[in-house]
Amino acid sequence: MPLSEIRQNLENEIQNLHFGESPTELYEPLRYLMKLGGKRMRPFLTILTYYAFRNDWKRIVRPALAVEVFHNFSLMHDDLMDNAPLRRNQATIHEKWNANTAILSGDVMLVEAYKLLEEIENPYFLPIFKLFNQTAKEVCEGQQFDMDFEKLASVSEAQYLEMIRLKTAVLLGFSLQMGAILAGADQENQDLFYELGIQMGIGFQLKDDLLDVYGEPDKFGKQVGGDIVENKKTFLLIKALENATGETKKKLDFWLKQRHFDKAEKVQAVTEVYNQLNIKVLTEQKMHNYFDQAAQTLSRIRLEAEKKHLLKSFLGALMERES
Amino acid sequence: MPLSEIRQNLENEIQNLHFGESPTELYEPLRYLMKLGGKRMRPFLTILTYYAFRNDWKRIVRPALAVEVFHNFSLMHDDLMDNAPLRRNQATIHEKWNANTAILSGDVMLVEAYKLLEEIENPYFLPIFKLFNQTAKEVCEGQQFDMDFEKLASVSEAQYLEMIRLKTAVLLGFSLQMGAILAGADQENQDLFYELGIQMGIGFQLKDDLLDVYGEPDKFGKQVGGDIVENKKTFLLIKALENATGETKKKLDFWLKQRHFDKAEKVQAVTEVYNQLNIKVLTEQKMHNYFDQAAQTLSRIRLEAEKKHLLKSFLGALMERES
Repeated sequence: MPLSEIRQNLENEIQNLHFGESPTELYEPLRYLMKLGGKRMRPFLTILTYYAFRNDWKRIVRPALAVEVFHNFSLMHDDLMDNAPLRRNQATIHEKWNANTAILSGDVMLVEAYKLLEEIENPYFLPIFKLFNQTAKEVCEGQQFDMDFEKLASVSEAQYLEMIRLKTAVLLGFSLQMGAILAGADQENQDLFYELGIQMGIGFQLKDDLLDVYGEPDKFGKQVGGDIVENKKTFLLIKALENATGETKKKLDFWLKQRHFDKAEKVQAVTEVYNQLNIKVLTEQKMHNYFDQAAQTLSRIRLEAEKKHLLKSFLGALMERES
Repeated sequence: MPLSEIRQNLENEIQNLHFGESPTELYEPLRYLMKLGGKRMRPFLTILTYYAFRNDWKRIVRPALAVEVFHNFSLMHDDLMDNAPLRRNQATIHEKWNANTAILSGDVMLVEAYKLLEEIENPYFLPIFKLFNQTAKEVCEGQQFDMDFEKLASVSEAQYLEMIRLKTAVLLGFSLQMGAILAGADQENQDLFYELGIQMGIGFQLKDDLLDVYGEPDKFGKQVGGDIVENKKTFLLIKALENATGETKKKLDFWLKQRHFDKAEKVQAVTEVYNQLNIKVLTEQKMHNYFDQAAQTLSRIRLEAEKKHLLKSFLGALMERES
């Protein structure tokens, strides 16, 4: 199993990425952000998918980085729009530099993602390019819906799931389908891999929502309850707003309205509301639902079972992760 | 001569551009900005170049719009970074909506520019895509240098010319070379068209700098002296800082340092400094220099003279323009 070799190779290529030198203030933030680390989940999935069909995965590592660079571009601009001070426990670009740097370095980072696609050969280039454009548009749409939701009094479960499909899941769908395209998979298998990425991506985000409240502080690596502090409309809050009545509803509304509060106190109080309403179980059920669908999609992909083994393990690890 | 037909067709296709519908706040700013008008100079140049080789120009109007959409993306983000309230006498995106909208709608607008390139066929797609990526990077580099210059006490003529080459001229170079590529021109002619675009673009920007101070208010369409009010490091200011001595230098420094002032008074005073130092003539000489180089480059392009006629007229019109 070349898993650790893939991870090492991927990380090496990321460290070797060369964007540009001058002007320094334009390109330095790209290097900074790419070196902050992260799971590198998206290019890793591209390579795992490719590897399900073909052994010579090293040839696609560079084009697979396009999706990691794109993901980091979107983090740079999202963090600015969300006014987030930290990313991976380090200062965000607009904090370390300024807003204009985050805008312009983000722009050039999006172009750098496209530039990495230059290395894809025909006949694979055009379908990947088109899917990338579509995906990039949808990621922007998802971010806009997410910002729109902040201003809405209530958001339905369906609206929320569509938002995270756009903001998070389509990029996973792209990552997997890109691997399938590069491996020469037929359209039916390509579509199944895309679908697998969507289901995995929605499950991944629901797990993220859960970890924010129920993660173990030592393992999570972020401040537990960050979403609660900011009234972020996660799946948990949406279900709580849907199900709360009487005193529980009063308590939830009280904490959502407070402008000045002790953070730990608010996190504890809202978590109590979630516990009373059984929100953890509701969210886990929904998450399992998506991971089950993903497993079914994987089983429908026309490949020998042993070829799907790594992806199946990855799905399990994603669902069980603690950070 | 199909000039008016080209203009009409180009404008129709711009009005017919369909970006996306939902979410509204994401896509509405794209429609708003594209409908504010403008010279449409860049796609027009792509078509004129193509037309120098081939008559069937209508087939390339859509891909040529990529450069106009890209140009408007860069305006959306530049206006935000420069904190500009007006564009073509209308509210800029961050003024009419807000900063986050200008960021995210700009991002999706850059993707829409790439999406228009999807319509280019092989073997032309890849060289255009690569040149577009390179150009987009350079435009970002130019904007970063421009912002860096605001913080510098002095900027040399060479630094300034390199900045406007990146910020403005390379996109004209791209526009012309794209027309040549689509027409099947050989590499030598392609390179000459690119060079022509660079020279034309630098001349164009120097004319812009001149018009800001010496344009006729009725014809210019913008407030005369806007660059002076903001201490913008134009070619005129750079040459004035280079050449001023004694009382003239004192006067210039005085007005550059004032934080509160009557705008008209400052514009008049700095214009007087320019006049004393013969800056208008110096700038015109430099501009003519670039337009002369452009005319020479055009003469070196291997095409019958009559085929170059429209481009030659366009060059003249660009130099003589009053708005």
